[in-house]
Amino acid sequence: VQRQQSAALSRELKKLNNADIAHLLNMLPADKRRTVWQQLDNHNAGDVLVELNDTIAEDLIEITEPARLGIILGTLDIDELTEIADLLPAPLLNQAVSSLEANERNWVERTLSYPQGTVGDNMSKDSLTLNERHTINQAIELVRSTPELPPQTDKLFVLGKHRQLVGVVPLIDLIRHPGETLIEDCMDKDVVTFAPHDDAEDAGQAFERYDLISAPVVDERHRLVGRLTVESIMDYLREVAENQALAKEGLRAGTDLFGPILEGARERWPWLMINLCTAFIASRFISIFEDTIQQLVALAALMPIVASVGGNTGNQTAALVIRGLAMEQIQRGNLSYIYRKELIISLLNGVIWGALLGLFAWMLYSNLLLGAVMMAAVTLNLLLAALIGITVPFLLDRLNKDPAMGSSVVLTFATDSMGFFLFLGLATLILV
Amino acid sequence: VQRQQSAALSRELKKLNNADIAHLLNMLPADKRRTVWQQLDNHNAGDVLVELNDTIAEDLIEITEPARLGIILGTLDIDELTEIADLLPAPLLNQAVSSLEANERNWVERTLSYPQGTVGDNMSKDSLTLNERHTINQAIELVRSTPELPPQTDKLFVLGKHRQLVGVVPLIDLIRHPGETLIEDCMDKDVVTFAPHDDAEDAGQAFERYDLISAPVVDERHRLVGRLTVESIMDYLREVAENQALAKEGLRAGTDLFGPILEGARERWPWLMINLCTAFIASRFISIFEDTIQQLVALAALMPIVASVGGNTGNQTAALVIRGLAMEQIQRGNLSYIYRKELIISLLNGVIWGALLGLFAWMLYSNLLLGAVMMAAVTLNLLLAALIGITVPFLLDRLNKDPAMGSSVVLTFATDSMGFFLFLGLATLILV
Repeated sequence: VQRQQSAALSRELKKLNNADIAHLLNMLPADKRRTVWQQLDNHNAGDVLVELNDTIAEDLIEITEPARLGIILGTLDIDELTEIADLLPAPLLNQAVSSLEANERNWVERTLSYPQGTVGDNMSKDSLTLNERHTINQAIELVRSTPELPPQTDKLFVLGKHRQLVGVVPLIDLIRHPGETLIEDCMDKDVVTFAPHDDAEDAGQAFERYDLISAPVVDERHRLVGRLTVESIMDYLREVAENQALAKEGLRAGTDLFGPILEGARERWPWLMINLCTAFIASRFISIFEDTIQQLVALAALMPIVASVGGNTGNQTAALVIRGLAMEQIQRGNLSYIYRKELIISLLNGVIWGALLGLFAWMLYSNLLLGAVMMAAVTLNLLLAALIGITVPFLLDRLNKDPAMGSSVVLTFATDSMGFFLFLGLATLILV
Repeated sequence: VQRQQSAALSRELKKLNNADIAHLLNMLPADKRRTVWQQLDNHNAGDVLVELNDTIAEDLIEITEPARLGIILGTLDIDELTEIADLLPAPLLNQAVSSLEANERNWVERTLSYPQGTVGDNMSKDSLTLNERHTINQAIELVRSTPELPPQTDKLFVLGKHRQLVGVVPLIDLIRHPGETLIEDCMDKDVVTFAPHDDAEDAGQAFERYDLISAPVVDERHRLVGRLTVESIMDYLREVAENQALAKEGLRAGTDLFGPILEGARERWPWLMINLCTAFIASRFISIFEDTIQQLVALAALMPIVASVGGNTGNQTAALVIRGLAMEQIQRGNLSYIYRKELIISLLNGVIWGALLGLFAWMLYSNLLLGAVMMAAVTLNLLLAALIGITVPFLLDRLNKDPAMGSSVVLTFATDSMGFFLFLGLATLILV
């Protein structure tokens, strides 16, 4: 039965294209995913591997015997190989690289040396290049004689004597200019270029601003080293956005929703640990005031409101600041304006909503002073939340960390601890 | 002095290109932003307006006298006009539209009728079209005679007798095929097309999967109605990502970091209100057990830990589920697998970390039973957090809402309330 099923599976798989198979594998629990993977013939397996989510690809690479993996890697071109290179075990990667021709091997090794998140890490090797002394007709001949153009080719790169980039020729110009025109007379010399160490997110903004489809990557002497396409940039930006949402909750990039249970449990430990520590410390602020609580037990019921309202407004401020930083709206020069504005907003909202909460507390417990303490504590905690909601993302950004990631832990810790401390402290001073 | 300064400003502005001016305006406080805007000459102002963030553009439109705004709008082409149409006051938009030629007016009116977030809302009007009976030479002639190609033109659209789309011809093929080839013999008939009512995010995934640069938009009879480009899709996806981060904190899309203070305060009221309500209800769960707390005041210090650890792990589960939904990894068919897996993970982590917390509570307060209650409450709250962390995003997605938006409020509300209730309830049963 097992064998019959597997034959039927093979037949079904043959009907799907590789992008669809990858999509299917992304959705399957780990054990089924592995069964399907083993059924794929080696040539398709390579294409599928490149299309898979990184986490899924990593899992399948791990369970594939090295001999088969070697064959599968042999079916990939070098751009595909560098794309999945960081998922491969070192010996296999070395073996795959060493079987390449010298110039390809050089390119792969250089590309792998650029850190993640740089232009160099996202660029591809092949581009159509020509010389400024060529004519349009020769350029057309070049395009015709290239059996498969690099994907998203919208322009040819023009190189000078020392392989330095001197201009570009949009494909459309091959049609528009007379055949005998010299490239140097019609090329576009005002080119947007990138350096391999440029930040890929900044490159993404440039692609958007200048409506680019592809752009040359050049070294410090302006020699062509690679090509960046809108597709690789879109890929990268999507990946960053996804990983950021996970990182905010303390999960590593590409956590596998369908992975093994034990691993899934363990992946959450560092975050659980951090949160237990902060919650534990915040709880110590409460225990300082246990006597006060014993005398006025209503405080125990009201204190989480003070903490939670601070956390919420602080996260609002932080979200605005994080967006402002990402869009380069916030600079050192206008930082004091933002502090002033957010603090005034917090003061306003603290007084208004603090008064409302104070009113509730007064009515519920028939204690006017309790209401006043509530109002004061909410106002102060909102001011603190605004301060931290601006300062923490700004500092993280200055330290070249992702402000979206660490801000909310620090913020919640501060507004919880201080919410408890302010409220119970004021209550101790005024009420008991 | 005022006049001298303004002359100097005008000179400075003339040195910048419009994208840079827009970038500058995005960074200025409201009053300075308005001063600079008033200095711009009308022709540049139109280009700048299109490049600005929506919120900033909206603010500047509001303060510009209608006569000047009319002139500025007159400098825009119709794709630019539709791009900012939803920011304009209705009378001005109508006036701008009525001054267009009939076919352009039709197009603008139709485009504005598509809801936000659809392909129709993001498409542009112009494309290069030809007939299947034309030859490559005629296509080349068409390209040559078009003074300015629509941006990101990588292919020509081939239309049949009734303007229905029958194929596309990549620009590159104009170079590769002999001039006398008939378009119908060389065109690509296997075309990725979109309908105006398609979801723009789905279109974005298709652009990524098939490496598209531009694609035709067709109606139900397959007639060409517009063109979608990778640039408009990237724009849209970035906007969605930004607004999502704000929406998660209850801020409306494009909240103005530099806007007026009162407005900034008021913008946060709905969210403050919701959070005050949930925090207030959670606090009522505590007040049920005030007698218990009075007898064992340590409970007041420990209960926020139970609530917070539940909220944190629930948000982890929700983040994984939201990503899984966005990537179409989660279907009705594998939902029960995900429930099972996440519940087991929660049980495991609940027992392990609950035991650790229980140990702390036991040691701190020399009360073994208190430790046991702590462990049980943490475990139960983690199970509840996993249940809600899966159910809420999944239901929101089924209801065609953004699961990233509402999940965290519901989740925090549940884990707070139930954290308090479980912990204090168990304590009441076992300890007092």
